[in-house]
Amino acid sequence: MRDEFYMQLALDKAWEYQGLTYPNPAVGAVVTLNGNILAIEAHQKAGTSHAEVLALISAYETLSNTQIDFDTNDAQKAHTFLLALPKDFFSDCSIYVTLEPCSHEGKTPSCASLLQSLALSRVIIGIQDPIEGHDGGMKKLGNASIGVLEDKCRDLIEPFMIWQRRAFVLFKLAQTTNGRIGGGYLSSEVSLTHVHQLREVCDRLLIGGNTVREDRPTLDCRFTKGKAPDVMIYTKEDNFDRDIPLFYVENRTVSVGDDLIFLGKPSFILVEGGEGMLKALQKKIDWMLIYQTPKLSTHNLTYNTKMNLEFLHQDKKDVDLMIWSRQIGD
Amino acid sequence: MRDEFYMQLALDKAWEYQGLTYPNPAVGAVVTLNGNILAIEAHQKAGTSHAEVLALISAYETLSNTQIDFDTNDAQKAHTFLLALPKDFFSDCSIYVTLEPCSHEGKTPSCASLLQSLALSRVIIGIQDPIEGHDGGMKKLGNASIGVLEDKCRDLIEPFMIWQRRAFVLFKLAQTTNGRIGGGYLSSEVSLTHVHQLREVCDRLLIGGNTVREDRPTLDCRFTKGKAPDVMIYTKEDNFDRDIPLFYVENRTVSVGDDLIFLGKPSFILVEGGEGMLKALQKKIDWMLIYQTPKLSTHNLTYNTKMNLEFLHQDKKDVDLMIWSRQIGD
Repeated sequence: MRDEFYMQLALDKAWEYQGLTYPNPAVGAVVTLNGNILAIEAHQKAGTSHAEVLALISAYETLSNTQIDFDTNDAQKAHTFLLALPKDFFSDCSIYVTLEPCSHEGKTPSCASLLQSLALSRVIIGIQDPIEGHDGGMKKLGNASIGVLEDKCRDLIEPFMIWQRRAFVLFKLAQTTNGRIGGGYLSSEVSLTHVHQLREVCDRLLIGGNTVREDRPTLDCRFTKGKAPDVMIYTKEDNFDRDIPLFYVENRTVSVGDDLIFLGKPSFILVEGGEGMLKALQKKIDWMLIYQTPKLSTHNLTYNTKMNLEFLHQDKKDVDLMIWSRQIGD
Repeated sequence: MRDEFYMQLALDKAWEYQGLTYPNPAVGAVVTLNGNILAIEAHQKAGTSHAEVLALISAYETLSNTQIDFDTNDAQKAHTFLLALPKDFFSDCSIYVTLEPCSHEGKTPSCASLLQSLALSRVIIGIQDPIEGHDGGMKKLGNASIGVLEDKCRDLIEPFMIWQRRAFVLFKLAQTTNGRIGGGYLSSEVSLTHVHQLREVCDRLLIGGNTVREDRPTLDCRFTKGKAPDVMIYTKEDNFDRDIPLFYVENRTVSVGDDLIFLGKPSFILVEGGEGMLKALQKKIDWMLIYQTPKLSTHNLTYNTKMNLEFLHQDKKDVDLMIWSRQIGD
């Protein structure tokens, strides 16, 4: 198979953790040996092992038919383990990575240095790291190939590129297949859990005033047992029933207002709401994330606005479809 | 990688030709050598080469680094060519097929006999051919493995199973992402071409009377330059403007009425229409095929009905999402 085939597998894996790696980019990696796929992994969470490291560890497990007994997401331990392997352990292997391996020693050791030490037969990279000062990986690796499925690899890290300079605004919506958004919980528990994972990592959850008044949501992370996000209720009128649970979640701040100046700050902002919020925020929305349930409904609540999107990635979440899209111009 | 990985690749390929293989089932096949993928192919059209044959031919091309110069969809030629190869040419290869290879000599020679002669190292089959009298393939192959991703392989051929005994009814719909179905052509040319391919192979196109009165569609296959389908206008009132192009397409019959008795006959019926048709036919609909465009629209035409679906497969068609789903009970 051609390089594009393996890179696509790395991309698909990386999309599983889109947003969840904030403030890091989503990255996927595949390790092969003579065309055989040994590992398909992705970076899962900032501060834990990078995609390359997880893929190499998993390739080691496949090749040696053993199982690692430490937490492979502990980057220090994983790097130390890989560097202690016999020098030629991976010498016949190839690795595909959607993004140029990091060259700087940060929370985790440099992946470019690691790959250099392991001396794989081929390193194939989707795109260069577009952040200034992050371009040392290629130099360290010398003869790596670069430029496979570049557009797709660039789409994958668009949120990362945006939150370097201002807020990345992700509008989340759950709907039936005929576009109805009312009628209680629409999504599967797997989809709801995914929403709670996103709530946990975002800097702030933006919600419409009407949604708070009518649905009285708690907006916590009970499915993941994580820290509830700080909430901003976007409204011109501060007339809320302060007895609703939203205001009583531990370790969370709630602000009320219509000043969106904070969107100029590098951050990850999740927006939840219906038609009103979609219209009010439309000019600020970068991406939409739609959880589409396999139902047609006669509920009258829908959303009525004009918007052009580009579908970036779709996948199943239990019975639902999860559709990632970008807002584009006319 | 495990058998499931390769079988999934065969499944995804087969879905590209879902419906288009009528009256044959959709089938996919993958050929590997020491875990390397040599070929991923699918049956495309009744009367042409089966998936196994196309995959073996493609694997030959990969291994020999040559290109076949005859039409590989000519099953007779393809079988003859494969049988003339050195006896051990594929002896180290494995083949994954979503459905038990055919044992009977029909329009094309038997695939089970072919695989027996080529003596591959492994034959891995998704599911047994569920049609009575079609179960000779496994017997011929002796030590083939069976039962990989069985549920998915069964979903793939559900239309085939249905059109053995009555009409398989596929309701096709083009919509925006917020469920609007009005406002002219919504889909990309690639999606429209796919609709025309389905129109070409189906036995009859069922369309609602109101759609004919209001949209005055031609319902031909101009994107594929194929034979336009016979049309039945489903209505209680035969009051159409007979001057519209629909009635003047060559080699097509048009019938008008509300008698659906013909659905009892083994056949493939494509339904196009809006809310009225969806409600009128709801009890008869087996699957829905939705072409979802990456747009939100303010058009007021939507469809308002209750229905439970199960998403079976999704894929991109140019910029659109193509979603195959099955109607399920409450």
